[in-house]
Amino acid sequence: MHFYIMTLFPEMVMQGLNTSIIGRAMEKGLLSIDAVNIRDYAFNKHNSVDDYPYGGGAGMLMQAEPVYQAYKAVEGMIAGAAPNEPWLKEAKEDAFCQAESLKEAGKPRVIYLSPQGRTFNQKMAEELAQEQELVFLCGHYEGIDERVVEEIVTDYVSIGDYILTGGELPAMIMVDAISRLVTGVLHNDVSAEFESFQDNLLEYPQYSRPEIWHDKRVPEILLSGHHANIEKWRREQSILRTAKLRPDLLKKAQLTENERKLLSRDDKCDKM
Amino acid sequence: MHFYIMTLFPEMVMQGLNTSIIGRAMEKGLLSIDAVNIRDYAFNKHNSVDDYPYGGGAGMLMQAEPVYQAYKAVEGMIAGAAPNEPWLKEAKEDAFCQAESLKEAGKPRVIYLSPQGRTFNQKMAEELAQEQELVFLCGHYEGIDERVVEEIVTDYVSIGDYILTGGELPAMIMVDAISRLVTGVLHNDVSAEFESFQDNLLEYPQYSRPEIWHDKRVPEILLSGHHANIEKWRREQSILRTAKLRPDLLKKAQLTENERKLLSRDDKCDKM
Repeated sequence: MHFYIMTLFPEMVMQGLNTSIIGRAMEKGLLSIDAVNIRDYAFNKHNSVDDYPYGGGAGMLMQAEPVYQAYKAVEGMIAGAAPNEPWLKEAKEDAFCQAESLKEAGKPRVIYLSPQGRTFNQKMAEELAQEQELVFLCGHYEGIDERVVEEIVTDYVSIGDYILTGGELPAMIMVDAISRLVTGVLHNDVSAEFESFQDNLLEYPQYSRPEIWHDKRVPEILLSGHHANIEKWRREQSILRTAKLRPDLLKKAQLTENERKLLSRDDKCDKM
Repeated sequence: MHFYIMTLFPEMVMQGLNTSIIGRAMEKGLLSIDAVNIRDYAFNKHNSVDDYPYGGGAGMLMQAEPVYQAYKAVEGMIAGAAPNEPWLKEAKEDAFCQAESLKEAGKPRVIYLSPQGRTFNQKMAEELAQEQELVFLCGHYEGIDERVVEEIVTDYVSIGDYILTGGELPAMIMVDAISRLVTGVLHNDVSAEFESFQDNLLEYPQYSRPEIWHDKRVPEILLSGHHANIEKWRREQSILRTAKLRPDLLKKAQLTENERKLLSRDDKCDKM
């Protein structure tokens, strides 16, 4: 998976994504992340990429042309990054065909981080993890000239109903969530953990050494060594916790008859 | 506003938050951000802070004690950071009273980033922006020993329904969203922009120079200089766009009779 992030803050993006899991995946060649500095495509001597909005109003806008040129550079990087892709090899044999082949192979998805977008969720992460390339466009100031957004963007995505100072952190969030789902990035045993959330249940409580900490004991059952009972207890804890904290999720969870009884019993006794 | 971020990746957090707006606010002394490295509170010679979960299962857990000691260090930093707070000054006159005074002044809110939390939104950001200190606890590996979470955490918050490799990026998202709302961080003119989202309407399209770009013209009205008409057009664009992209938000928006008519007219003509 190749991520391309169009931004005014390339260093922030690269440093923020260089943590353990993502960093290791990059070293292994499972992922690549390129931050493209939109400012490099400024067309004036001051290297500025912003200007006043027509019609007046607060703040500055990112202009169309530097964003467009940065995008064209990303297109070029995508073409160059995958020299062994059959479609591209053919294309390179005839330079005239290259643009056409790019088109046939499908333009990359270009995601604009915006409160106006569809809300990002795990299902969208799974879908996007199937792509070979993803391009992110991070806005700053009061936004980006509408015309270039219309021209290059394929997906408008919001990570939640809150306002941020720019698109960089949301892009990093998306890269992180999507990267986890790329084959080989997580160890298999760790990725299994993820399945529990897919069941629409929250994680059960976990405990590590020591057995007693601040007078709090690890639940007896976890020390029993009886795996079937431990599994049962954990699943029950997940269900009870989801019922308490995220009843909206529980509606979508598949529960057995006995598990439903557990919930109604819990209602009566007010055990949680 | 003082932010304290308990993490295994302090550099990532600090670098990712040092952008224009937040960076300037820190220079002006409006905000401070301290990243506390939980690993500094490891109690073994390998500096490790993780261990196997009781009862078996995938991955490692962050242990209770290093997290707890890191939290105690943050408590100390909070006490030291505000030496002119009257309650603390009194307390310092009598060392024995200090712990008690801290309690009276209210422990800081400690936010644990977790899929189990309430979903973060703009309203929560506004509420949290009223605090003097906020502490964030970033989990990693497969989670944190439940006992220390129970003991120190006051708020469980999720930034959305997707799975990430750790709590750092969500903490950065929250710091960013909350910082914008701290008095003085945004210029007044820029912060006005934010009001439009509070009306539950999306931003109208914006345009900057040149007037014609890739054969696309800036809408005539924005060049008219007639401010009342421009305002009216922008509001209409916001309403139409919200109706198209986020009908869920529009339900909560306050519209005039004429604006409601605009929407029904738009339905009929399929203008959008």
